Amino acid sequence: MNAGSAEVPGTGPATAPEAARLARVASRKLAAVSEQQRNSALLLAAERLEEGEGQIVAANAEDVRAAEVLARTEKMSPAMLTRLRVTEKSVADMAEKVRSVVRLPDPLGRKLSVTELDTGLVLTKETCPLGVVAVVFESRPDVVPQVASLALKSGNAILLKGGSEAARTNEVLMATWNSALEESGIPRGAAQLLHSRADVMELLHLERDVDLLIPRGGKDFVESISRQSRIPVLGHGAGICHVYVHSGADLQKAERIVLDAKTDYPAACNAAETLLVDTEIAARFLPRMIEKLRAAGVEVRGCERTGAIVSSGVDAASERDWATEYSDLILSVKVVDGLDQAITHIHAYGSNHTEAIVTEDSAAAERFLSEVDAAGVYHNASTRFADGYRYGLGAEVGISNGKLHARGPMGMDGLTTYKYKLRGSGHTVADYKSGKKFTHRVR
Amino acid sequence: MNAGSAEVPGTGPATAPEAARLARVASRKLAAVSEQQRNSALLLAAERLEEGEGQIVAANAEDVRAAEVLARTEKMSPAMLTRLRVTEKSVADMAEKVRSVVRLPDPLGRKLSVTELDTGLVLTKETCPLGVVAVVFESRPDVVPQVASLALKSGNAILLKGGSEAARTNEVLMATWNSALEESGIPRGAAQLLHSRADVMELLHLERDVDLLIPRGGKDFVESISRQSRIPVLGHGAGICHVYVHSGADLQKAERIVLDAKTDYPAACNAAETLLVDTEIAARFLPRMIEKLRAAGVEVRGCERTGAIVSSGVDAASERDWATEYSDLILSVKVVDGLDQAITHIHAYGSNHTEAIVTEDSAAAERFLSEVDAAGVYHNASTRFADGYRYGLGAEVGISNGKLHARGPMGMDGLTTYKYKLRGSGHTVADYKSGKKFTHRVR
Repeated sequence: MNAGSAEVPGTGPATAPEAARLARVASRKLAAVSEQQRNSALLLAAERLEEGEGQIVAANAEDVRAAEVLARTEKMSPAMLTRLRVTEKSVADMAEKVRSVVRLPDPLGRKLSVTELDTGLVLTKETCPLGVVAVVFESRPDVVPQVASLALKSGNAILLKGGSEAARTNEVLMATWNSALEESGIPRGAAQLLHSRADVMELLHLERDVDLLIPRGGKDFVESISRQSRIPVLGHGAGICHVYVHSGADLQKAERIVLDAKTDYPAACNAAETLLVDTEIAARFLPRMIEKLRAAGVEVRGCERTGAIVSSGVDAASERDWATEYSDLILSVKVVDGLDQAITHIHAYGSNHTEAIVTEDSAAAERFLSEVDAAGVYHNASTRFADGYRYGLGAEVGISNGKLHARGPMGMDGLTTYKYKLRGSGHTVADYKSGKKFTHRVR
Repeated sequence: MNAGSAEVPGTGPATAPEAARLARVASRKLAAVSEQQRNSALLLAAERLEEGEGQIVAANAEDVRAAEVLARTEKMSPAMLTRLRVTEKSVADMAEKVRSVVRLPDPLGRKLSVTELDTGLVLTKETCPLGVVAVVFESRPDVVPQVASLALKSGNAILLKGGSEAARTNEVLMATWNSALEESGIPRGAAQLLHSRADVMELLHLERDVDLLIPRGGKDFVESISRQSRIPVLGHGAGICHVYVHSGADLQKAERIVLDAKTDYPAACNAAETLLVDTEIAARFLPRMIEKLRAAGVEVRGCERTGAIVSSGVDAASERDWATEYSDLILSVKVVDGLDQAITHIHAYGSNHTEAIVTEDSAAAERFLSEVDAAGVYHNASTRFADGYRYGLGAEVGISNGKLHARGPMGMDGLTTYKYKLRGSGHTVADYKSGKKFTHRVR
């Protein structure tokens, strides 16, 4: 059972360069596969996943057994073990998610602009696939059908490297997936698994055959990939998000938002790490806010002015706290002298991810929204909304901290680029140097 | 006269890190400057350029004198000397181009999408400046006002490093420019010159304060910058463009297009380097085509099959020719067995820049346009149309060979990104886990 992994017949699994080359060749053909054919292949893949449920769950049971041994030696956390597990219900969910991708509008061939340059000479800027996308992820096997379905829908070939702890599950998922693709006439090599960490290291240098790398993992992992590769990388490092309670805030709204942003899911990158409070309202707001935070199990680290207002249960924050992503039930609190100081603090310590202001003063809010340089700038809402599903993007390919190509939660559009199609009838440039004029009529 | 260059008062020119830091601070403020204020500053700058004409031309005369000495020792080509020269007419042109940027629509605050996530919770995806953009260019001083005007119009701070041969001209241009910006209340540091090659090397490592690098120069220069910097780079390396004459071509159109693509301006990246011809029509097409090319001074290097058709005046092409950007009056010619072989050749040797097919067979043309992976794919038109002005983009910031963010000729939009603005009234994520539903209504 390895039809699904990158394999050269009779020679065992393909090397990363072989897999990437095959993916590149497949991607050229995929660019011309119709929406109908892509959707039929996806529907068949969803069926095959359901039919293969027994095999998938059995392979996963083997992975889980091996992982449980590791868990006893503390090489694997209980959270990783939970993410690894695949049940009958998970397989049904995977199939359902593949069908939901079928229902998304076609991301290809969308006309971004049409300009008549001159009579009979028409320029169309049109969306098309990126080509070959590589995704490196950790233990969750449901990433395989999820990312593979987004890639196929957007006409891209995909190279996937999952965690070794899920190797058996991933192999079976990919074999199941590719049996459907093959039957649907999708070019061979359109979806392949890579097998080792060495494959990933080789992948980083295959800029001729790989157009985009999406590392899904911790900050250090993402940064190390970006440093080592000349292939464009979309991912996100730190998530140091702030909630700023302005002097004009409705303090009840502020309490609700701060609690949600910190405690709803502290491990998420869009959770708040620092609370900024205007000095004008600090004495009214902080005692009750800190009491509620502590009741929710949050450790509070405050600046000097915070400590002067609430002495008990507040540790002193150090310079280092402002630059720390706790990913935990810890919150640093700083009293500021108004909007400008809040914005300066955010630019000094934030990670351009998601920043929120709480205020009823709409002029202050609009200044915050236009001046703060971040992927998400929020007024009277929790930072936790920064997410592809909540944004209505349909499915999230990843979150990008960069400013180019895609910023913030990235939907399937992040896997497309555009090309310019120019249709003429023998037009030459020299003619426009001897009197002919461009019309440049936008259609 | 150095108010225009990066300078810390009393300490001489700023170092690259100081200049970039100042640019970053300026960029935060620039993001909130109104369109009206940006346009007024540009109009004043155009006036100042006209008023400063005498000073500019005088400074340029000094640069030209120094360059003429170098030209005698062959350290500078006659072409560089020509590009360096600034006349009264050039200054008037610079001012006119700045005014044309004023007339472009505002690239900022454009709503790319508006989604109601729930009652009273509205998500707007809105264009905004990238932040700090650095442009490194060669001898043409008119790049200074051109790029500075596009940067200011799009709300970006700019760092410019020109060639040392134009140092005096660039200093005066920048001082003139900044006198207008200062009078218009544009934040200090929004436009700065860097001074040395060492500054550029330092710049490459300032990823905290520089969002985008645009190197405008030769292929090796662009590649060396990309390799050394973790800052995103937009530029283009090689331009190996093909014209493919399909069996269904109108041979007269084909002749016109091939001649234009090769001879209109051979040094341009969008000039053709290789002609592909279907074997079916090669014997009819090549003799006359090659005769015309030779009459236009073009050296022809053909594959074996080409040599068998036209023996005289055709050198034998080697494998290396297919991968060479001549940038000169040289053309390689290859006979192919139809569309598939043409596309395979283009993907093997092309640089994803601009590729053209000549044919009256629209099915073949559409296949070529969808399957060829390049920034520009043309039907019955010369590759020389690949240019921001000809595309109607208003002004060209550069050409990108990459697929992310911007592809092909890049207008001012290439200097913008987007942010998500979310406006609520106390919304928290926890509510949607206990029954509340998103509406996700696209407006």
